Parts: sequence; C-alpha cells; structure tokens
Amino acid sequence: MTPTITAFERSPDRGRGLGRDMHVRWALEEVGQPYDVRLVSFAEMKEPAHRALHPFGQIPTYEEGDLALFESGAIVFHIAQRHAGLLPDDANARARAITWMFAALSTVEPPILELVTAKFLEGDKSWSGQRRLLVEDRIRNRLGDLSRRLGDADWLDGAFSAGDLVMVGVLRRLNGSGLLDPNLAAYVARGEARPAFKRAFDAQLAVFTAASTGR
Amino acid sequence: MTPTITAFERSPDRGRGLGRDMHVRWALEEVGQPYDVRLVSFAEMKEPAHRALHPFGQIPTYEEGDLALFESGAIVFHIAQRHAGLLPDDANARARAITWMFAALSTVEPPILELVTAKFLEGDKSWSGQRRLLVEDRIRNRLGDLSRRLGDADWLDGAFSAGDLVMVGVLRRLNGSGLLDPNLAAYVARGEARPAFKRAFDAQLAVFTAASTGR
Repeated sequence: MTPTITAFERSPDRGRGLGRDMHVRWALEEVGQPYDVRLVSFAEMKEPAHRALHPFGQIPTYEEGDLALFESGAIVFHIAQRHAGLLPDDANARARAITWMFAALSTVEPPILELVTAKFLEGDKSWSGQRRLLVEDRIRNRLGDLSRRLGDADWLDGAFSAGDLVMVGVLRRLNGSGLLDPNLAAYVARGEARPAFKRAFDAQLAVFTAASTGR
Repeated sequence: MTPTITAFERSPDRGRGLGRDMHVRWALEEVGQPYDVRLVSFAEMKEPAHRALHPFGQIPTYEEGDLALFESGAIVFHIAQRHAGLLPDDANARARAITWMFAALSTVEPPILELVTAKFLEGDKSWSGQRRLLVEDRIRNRLGDLSRRLGDADWLDGAFSAGDLVMVGVLRRLNGSGLLDPNLAAYVARGEARPAFKRAFDAQLAVFTAASTGR
C-alpha cells in the first residue's frame, strides 16, 4: 500500500530541504518505497482535520491504510523497521543504530533548534546577538563530541543506517553556518551525495518551485 | 543477564529524580528486570573510559553482555522491545506508542530544555528574565496541544506505554513551575503513582541520600 505523507505547500526554507518531511522522503527513497504527498498550507496545519493526524499541528504525517503516524523520527523508524536497508540485521548493531536516531533528535538537535529560535523568534531583541554566541558555543561543544566519535569513519556505526540519515538531516540545518568542522561537513556531504537523498531533495524542491512559479 | 546502567554519583537535582537515568530505572522496574548501577562523578563522565560508552559524556549508559547503549530514549526503547509490558503487541498501536516516545523527546522536551538552560546557564544575564517569559509562552503553547490531545484519557494512546513513560519523565521537569495545566498535572501524577515509578524514584533518591550523608 502506498503511504501518503504531508509536507509544506510552500516551505519556509525556500526549497533547501530543511523541512522534516525531508527525513521521511529520504528514508522512503533509501528503501525504494513509492509514496504520495499531500501538501498543506500553514492555515490547514492548524485546523482540526490536520490536528487529528498531528496533535502539534506540524508536518510531516504518515498514513498507510489504517495507520496514522506523526513525528519524523518515529516515521523514519517505522519505515526502517518495515523495509530492508536502513537498520542492520544483527540485534546489537540495530540497537546502536536506533541509539543514533535518538541521539540526533534529543542530544544533537536541541541546541541547533535553539539557534533557529534565536534567529527567527528572538532576532529582534536587543540581546539576540549576545545570546547567539552562547548558543553557538553549546553547539560547537556538542558537535566536537560527535566529530571525535565519528573519527575518520564514513558513518557513525558501520554501514549507513537510519541513525546516519537522521543525524545528517539534523546537521544539514548548519550548512553555511560555519559551525560544522571539516570532518562533520564531509559527513553531511557524504549523506547528501547518496542517490536516495538527491531524489528526495529534488522532490521537495519541485514542490517549492511549483508553488513559487505557479501563482 | 543483569544489565548495568550509569547514574550521577551526586545528582544535581538533589534526588528529585530528574536525571535521565530515571527514565531507564522506571522502564526496568515496569518490566520487572533487575539491574546494577555504576555511579559516575562529573569528572569521570568526561574521561575517555566513560566517553567510550557515551560519546557526549553524559548519563545514563546501558551495558548488557557485549551490547553498550547510551541515550535514555534508545535505552527505554531497547528495554521495551526485549520485555513485555511497555509496548502493545498490535503493530499499529506499537508504532503509535513509539511515536509518542519520539514526540516527547523531540517536540515536547526541547522548549523545556530551553527553560532549564535559561535558568542555569543564562540566569546571570540582564535579559534572562525577559527571555524566560518568551520560552514559557512556547512551552505553554506546546503543552496546550498535548493536553487537548490527551483529553480526558488516562494515557496518550490506550494502555500505559513507553510513550507515556518518556512523556511523563519529560513533563516532570515542570513540576512546581505552574506550567502544567490541571489535566497534564493529573497525567504526570498518574505516572508517578505507578508502583514501578515509585521503586525507581526511591532507588535514585537513596543514591543521593547516601552521597549526602556519607561524606
């Protein structure tokens, strides 16, 4: 059964693939699973019909028969469990790959989200610049730990996994920020070079381009 | 095989059970799995031996035979997968329970962590009070969505699950803050009333008490 995901009708990132639908599109491309996309406007996201699918009024959601999920990490995990290609077969290696998914979302992403918040929701405050330096220090700290653990390996634990997919997805928000050291920048570039990533990226970009030129 | 987890030798929360080992202890108690605890000091957490287990130099870690995991969400998930009691058998219900674990850690917790950061790392800044109001508004917003979804149900999706365990664990940081509405406060209280929670809470409190009186 072809699943349906939701994505921004007009992404605020202007097609840079930073919306959380990108993680899900990428995962579906990695496992070779076709999918449909339903685009939602900012107004629709906050309406009861969408909130029935996503209690926090966000994207992406995932519908497949009578299953409805939200939360990109959970959706990627669901896809990785149902299809081969994103989680190792060995039970211990699988548990470690899942660990990296959680680490990406609950240890690495929070300070990065603080930076996004500082820029978009607090950029007009007098103390915004001063605080941004503090947040950037915290990000550098955490990324230093991550970079040391990665070392000179291609991926975080053996072969490319859902853990790398989510981690690269999270780190991509820092492209162009100067906060990724060369080791992590190369790691992100390896992720972005994957054919499945490119297909997912092009698909979300096509949505933005159509929205921009079609009106 | 009895797993070994790590916890703070002397928790900075003074025994209130806000360390992330609490999620893991609680999960182990829910499934009736005995465990050993190795206490680590703040200095030890940053040393190579501990960083080999936890790349970000934090607690908890989880060792079981030749498996070593970090990240409380991943450890709770691992426990929930290996033992009955924390995830439904039905595949769709199971995917939804896992969704709530991710939602707790990557949608509900980040603004709560911002509040913790604002208090402990930025409390000395002239703009700290002003900013805290902004962060509190964001938390209220997100918790409003959560409270509406919970409605008058006891748990987020049917029976108590690992999703509730992690969500209650995350929300407990707000006990006493005035930010939990009565509906969510009652939800947290239901979690804290579970015998497994109480056993886990008492175990971590005993560590703090011993550290405080033993020196």
